[in-house]
This record gives sequence, structure tokens and C-alpha cells, in this order.
Amino acid sequence: MTRGRFITFEGGEGGGKSTQARWLAAHLARQGLPVLLTREPGGSAGAEAIRSVLLEGQGFDPVAEAMLMFAARREHVVATIRPALAAGMWVVCDRFADSTRAYQCHGQGVAGEVYGRLAELALEGLAPDLTLILDIAPEAGMARAMARGAAADRYERLDGGFHARVRAGFLAIAAAEPHRCAVLDAARPAEAVFADILSTVAARLGRAA
Amino acid sequence: MTRGRFITFEGGEGGGKSTQARWLAAHLARQGLPVLLTREPGGSAGAEAIRSVLLEGQGFDPVAEAMLMFAARREHVVATIRPALAAGMWVVCDRFADSTRAYQCHGQGVAGEVYGRLAELALEGLAPDLTLILDIAPEAGMARAMARGAAADRYERLDGGFHARVRAGFLAIAAAEPHRCAVLDAARPAEAVFADILSTVAARLGRAA
Repeated sequence: MTRGRFITFEGGEGGGKSTQARWLAAHLARQGLPVLLTREPGGSAGAEAIRSVLLEGQGFDPVAEAMLMFAARREHVVATIRPALAAGMWVVCDRFADSTRAYQCHGQGVAGEVYGRLAELALEGLAPDLTLILDIAPEAGMARAMARGAAADRYERLDGGFHARVRAGFLAIAAAEPHRCAVLDAARPAEAVFADILSTVAARLGRAA
Repeated sequence: MTRGRFITFEGGEGGGKSTQARWLAAHLARQGLPVLLTREPGGSAGAEAIRSVLLEGQGFDPVAEAMLMFAARREHVVATIRPALAAGMWVVCDRFADSTRAYQCHGQGVAGEVYGRLAELALEGLAPDLTLILDIAPEAGMARAMARGAAADRYERLDGGFHARVRAGFLAIAAAEPHRCAVLDAARPAEAVFADILSTVAARLGRAA
């Protein structure tokens, strides 16, 4: 059996990651592919328990927060992602390790070396085959996030400077790993973004849209 | 202001760590010393939230569990232990990093190198001045833990082989770091163990009993 493919969606708030991930998973499934749609933090029972501590807590020391994120990610990888890939599934994940690098390193100042060590321990070499970065200006993204009526979580309440650093972080990751990452302009209508996603998946992973 | 002292209690279930830690903290306070009594996992608001996920959860991948333990520890060290030591306090802590080494590495097979990297990230060189290992045979310790009426937590429900490995792990830590660690026979009456603790603290840290 051939190993499946691992596609992650990344970017700041309000770029439409959850919607696009859902649409892509549905599209692949309609093509007859076995698909697993998942998200982080969370995606397995243990990781979902950690998610609630992370998102509803009163805030953590940034290094402790990065460690928590990677503890949840390790659990998600071991319990959910690796078994699905081994079974030949296409795994579509809403946020993954790049979010920790963008939010905790670029946003909160955790050293890149700390990120690198945690990633090594938690992932043991696992990396996405394709990462779709939905790029949007923080003000526009926040306005959308508010409009969808979601209660602001802890990150969403942080200041504009933080979100600007996070956005720059995602763009820096894409620049450093162009083969893995594609940056898409997420300020456009969702249908236009989705068309780009399909052509990117087709070009990078060989699935015709 | 001189830095305070950092004393940890370690060992398997039923060795009397919580009682002895409380007695020692009270004893030091009666001598007029500023004392902070704390415990792990937990000891700060964020770390206590992680504690409940750890102890009441359905179990985690062992590496994820070690990461969670060190995330809680990092939070505890940053928010509670380092500030107290910097203020000249004597910090008495019921379990610390040696528990992760004994339970996750010796008990559950996590590599020592994984422990070492997490410890480096979370502790940045902080180590106890004195670690009191309350040693007791697992069967005797479990019988005591049950007798005190505590509901068995996830670790306490694990098999006897696990607890034997954990005990051997604590003894190996003590053998490797004899200057920091003291092993006390915790099968004796609590008052006799406490007398030993006081003389050990006096001999190692220069406080007369």
C-alpha cells in the first residue's frame, strides 16, 4: 500500500482555513480517495483534552505553551496522522507545526532552536507533503473572524502587533521552504481561493482538479 | 538577598512524600525560615490545569506524556519556583523532574535523551539542592496508598512490574547523583523517617534539626 499524502492549512485568523480544509477533503473524497479531515490543536482524544487547556486557559509561559502544543501534536501524530498515512489516506489538517513556529516563535519570541528540538522529539521527521498558507492582513482576518460570530479565543484577543508578527512568520516559513509551501491570497472570495487550492494540489501532488 | 534552597521529595506511591514534605515545611517555618510548600504536577494555575488532563485522562503516548509533564514543570518553575528562590525562600516540592525520569523513562521506556532535552528546555539548569527519595517496596507502598482511601489514579492502576521499574529508576538516579540525592527507607514509621529527613537536611544544607 502506498503511503497517503499529508496536506496542512496554515495562516492567521479569518483566512478561511477550516472552510477550505473541509471543501478540499470533500473534493478528494468525491474523487474516491480515502480522506481524513483533522485539526490542531486536537485531532485525537488526548490532544483534544490538551486543546481545551490551551485555548481556555489563562495563558502560559511561551516555552511551556510550545511544549504543550507539541505534546498535543505528538499525541495527534501517533494516534491519528501516522496510522492514517500508513493506511494510504489523504490527511487534510487545519493547522500543524508551522502554527507553533509562527505563533510561539515569531509572535511570542520563543527561540527557533527550542521549536526545532520540540519538533524533532514530537514528529521524528514527519512533515507535510504540501502546506497551503492562507495569507490575509490581520485587520481583515480579524474582522472576518468576528463576523462569523466566534467568541474570541485567547489568541484572537492579542494585539495587532502580535498578529502582524504571526503573518510575517508564516511568510518567512514559506520563503524558507518553497517546495513544501504555497502562499495563497485569502482576501479574495472563498470560491476563488478554493480554485487556487485545487490547481495547487494538482500541480504539486499530481491530483487533477 | 541570598538565593533560597530547593528541596524535592521523590519516590513511588505510598512512601509518605506528601506528609513528610508538609512536616518538613512546617519545621523549617517554625525555625523562622520563609518556606514555600508546593507539588507536581501542578504548583501554579497553568500547571494545575495540565495536572487534571494528566491524571484524569485516558492515557497518552509516553513521549507526549513526558512533554506534558515538562510543560507543566516549565510553568511551575517560571511562575512559582524561580521567583520564590530568588526571594530567598526554601522551596519544598512534592515530586519534580526525577519523577518524569523514573515513571516515563524507567517505567514506560522513554529514551533518556528525550528526557535530557526536555529537561534542558524546561529547567534551563535549575536543579534541586537536595532530593529526598522515600524508598519503599511497591507492594507495601500500594497497600498504604489504598489504605489512605485515595481513589487510584492512572499510575496507581498500572501493574506491579511498572512500579518495580519505577523504584529501580529512583535508585539509579540516586546512585548517579549521590551528592544531590539521599535515599531513605520509607517502610519505617513516619516519625522515624522524619527524624532521618531532619538530620539529612542538617548535614547536607547546614540547618540544624
